[in-house]
Amino acid sequence: MAFNDLLLRTLNGEKTERPPIWLMRQAGRYMKEYRDVRSKVSFLELCKTPELACEVVLQPIDAFGLDCAILFSDILVPIEPMGVNLDFKPAPYISNPVRTLEDADRMRLVNPKTELKFVMDAIKLMISKLNVPLIGFSGAPFTLACYMIEGEGSKSFLEVKKLMHNNTKAYTVLMEKLTDNTISYLQAQVDSGCPVVQMFDTWAGLVSTYEYEEFIFPYVQRVAESVKGAHFIYFAKDSSSFYPLIKNLNCAALGVDWKTSLKQADAALEHKFVLQGNMDPALLFADKATITKYANIILEEGKSLKGHIFNLGHGIMPQTPVENVKHLVDIVKGV
Amino acid sequence: MAFNDLLLRTLNGEKTERPPIWLMRQAGRYMKEYRDVRSKVSFLELCKTPELACEVVLQPIDAFGLDCAILFSDILVPIEPMGVNLDFKPAPYISNPVRTLEDADRMRLVNPKTELKFVMDAIKLMISKLNVPLIGFSGAPFTLACYMIEGEGSKSFLEVKKLMHNNTKAYTVLMEKLTDNTISYLQAQVDSGCPVVQMFDTWAGLVSTYEYEEFIFPYVQRVAESVKGAHFIYFAKDSSSFYPLIKNLNCAALGVDWKTSLKQADAALEHKFVLQGNMDPALLFADKATITKYANIILEEGKSLKGHIFNLGHGIMPQTPVENVKHLVDIVKGV
Repeated sequence: MAFNDLLLRTLNGEKTERPPIWLMRQAGRYMKEYRDVRSKVSFLELCKTPELACEVVLQPIDAFGLDCAILFSDILVPIEPMGVNLDFKPAPYISNPVRTLEDADRMRLVNPKTELKFVMDAIKLMISKLNVPLIGFSGAPFTLACYMIEGEGSKSFLEVKKLMHNNTKAYTVLMEKLTDNTISYLQAQVDSGCPVVQMFDTWAGLVSTYEYEEFIFPYVQRVAESVKGAHFIYFAKDSSSFYPLIKNLNCAALGVDWKTSLKQADAALEHKFVLQGNMDPALLFADKATITKYANIILEEGKSLKGHIFNLGHGIMPQTPVENVKHLVDIVKGV
Repeated sequence: MAFNDLLLRTLNGEKTERPPIWLMRQAGRYMKEYRDVRSKVSFLELCKTPELACEVVLQPIDAFGLDCAILFSDILVPIEPMGVNLDFKPAPYISNPVRTLEDADRMRLVNPKTELKFVMDAIKLMISKLNVPLIGFSGAPFTLACYMIEGEGSKSFLEVKKLMHNNTKAYTVLMEKLTDNTISYLQAQVDSGCPVVQMFDTWAGLVSTYEYEEFIFPYVQRVAESVKGAHFIYFAKDSSSFYPLIKNLNCAALGVDWKTSLKQADAALEHKFVLQGNMDPALLFADKATITKYANIILEEGKSLKGHIFNLGHGIMPQTPVENVKHLVDIVKGV
């Protein structure tokens, strides 16, 4: 079977016969095959065992015929060797959060080719088995900083904002290190064979436009400009207010969450990017007619973009009915 | 002392000497005086006892010289007589959530003047003691529906979206009743003397623009058009993507959260509204220089608006240092 290069052609700006489709968190708990693997090992073990990570990456490709795969890992995996005591209970928990300059100074730069060798091994194994492109990924510096500063989930992310404003030096030291590490981590993934990388900025939408401009965007820009040899996709949730800044980002494509229409995003971004998105993951719990209705709205809006990669507007949810995933993929593929 | 009508003049579209300032949740746990009252009664008892509710409403006016007061209550108080088993543990918990058409049919229309008489009594008492305008408020139909359908807090609000799409009839019956109740509840507050009412749509930002247009906005519009004799303020969090619709709303003012700048909001809303906002409540944990910096940015942006009411972009947080609240109010008042 020929290699499916639909994603790469779309990212190259070519007009394609239809948009490629993949789903954030497509290897995951909604699939019985995944739960079977996961029942034998912990989540971190799964991330760190290339053969198992490869197995779950292939599952949704085989089941639904998706147009690309994405590395199986967690955005927090690469912060562990920085000196972070990371646990999943199952929510991420960090017992030594960064709250002072000394804490930030203690965080290490990581050599991904040695200290995260299992990720590179997993990538090479996945690529050897796949007939579609493999997307590498990382968390964005700010989103990683949020976890490292809070130590666990939060509603207000107050500790992050306190450090940002009341100890800007510590915040900056941490962000600089995270930026350096993110660049070397993504570059190592590209060097291991990923033709596309996506950077997830899940928590960027927590701040004002002024704070995004001063405390977040410069680091995003530095990563996007530094990673060479692959298409770069930036996905920041709840970020439509930042589009006047993000439109200056040096990258191929932007992820759009479901709360902003692709058309609105494209207008605000001045038609500069291939857009990826943006069905609400909750719609996969609706009946097939509703899924069809919203998929068609998105497909229609996608036609006027510079390029469109069909995806959800956020990760697929664990209880999603598998038959609805199949239905969505079939609509997008026109089968 | 003369009645402070700064808020009313601003809402009337008059140019004023400075913007009025009040803070969402200004009567609350960050004040020792509030905690003292609250230590003697449950939250619901406090809401239902006019003398105590009045006492806590006056506290921040006396302490900070704010330009208006807001009714002390909870958005869920008026859904209790609909037939909802409501408890605060301390997070709201509903033991009989609405999941079927039968559940929705069972919900009652409420006569606020009799069944919520304690609210009207509280309003009259507050007004008799206040030297500033009293803002009445309610939750918006969708936000109330979210609580009633989920039964408790949620990250994905999956049950809401399932009912909306898979049982649209039940969703519609519930929303129609909530809309009728919201209109009569707000009208009763106006009839009791409130010159301004604010409707909070905390969860509207959960849905796509298509869903907002079809399943939420028509009900918002019906409330805004039906309440007579007072200025109407609509505050929907995370709603900047909906501004192309919201700009058609028949009301005096819109609340803006801290994630969109007032300038951006004003442009998207075509300069049609007085805007209220929008400092991040988390900034009240920063040092005074940072608070001053961001307050001045907001004050400056406010000058180009049709009218500006200074507020936070969301409710003040329980641990907020009181001296920082005083500092913010002083900056806005120019003292």
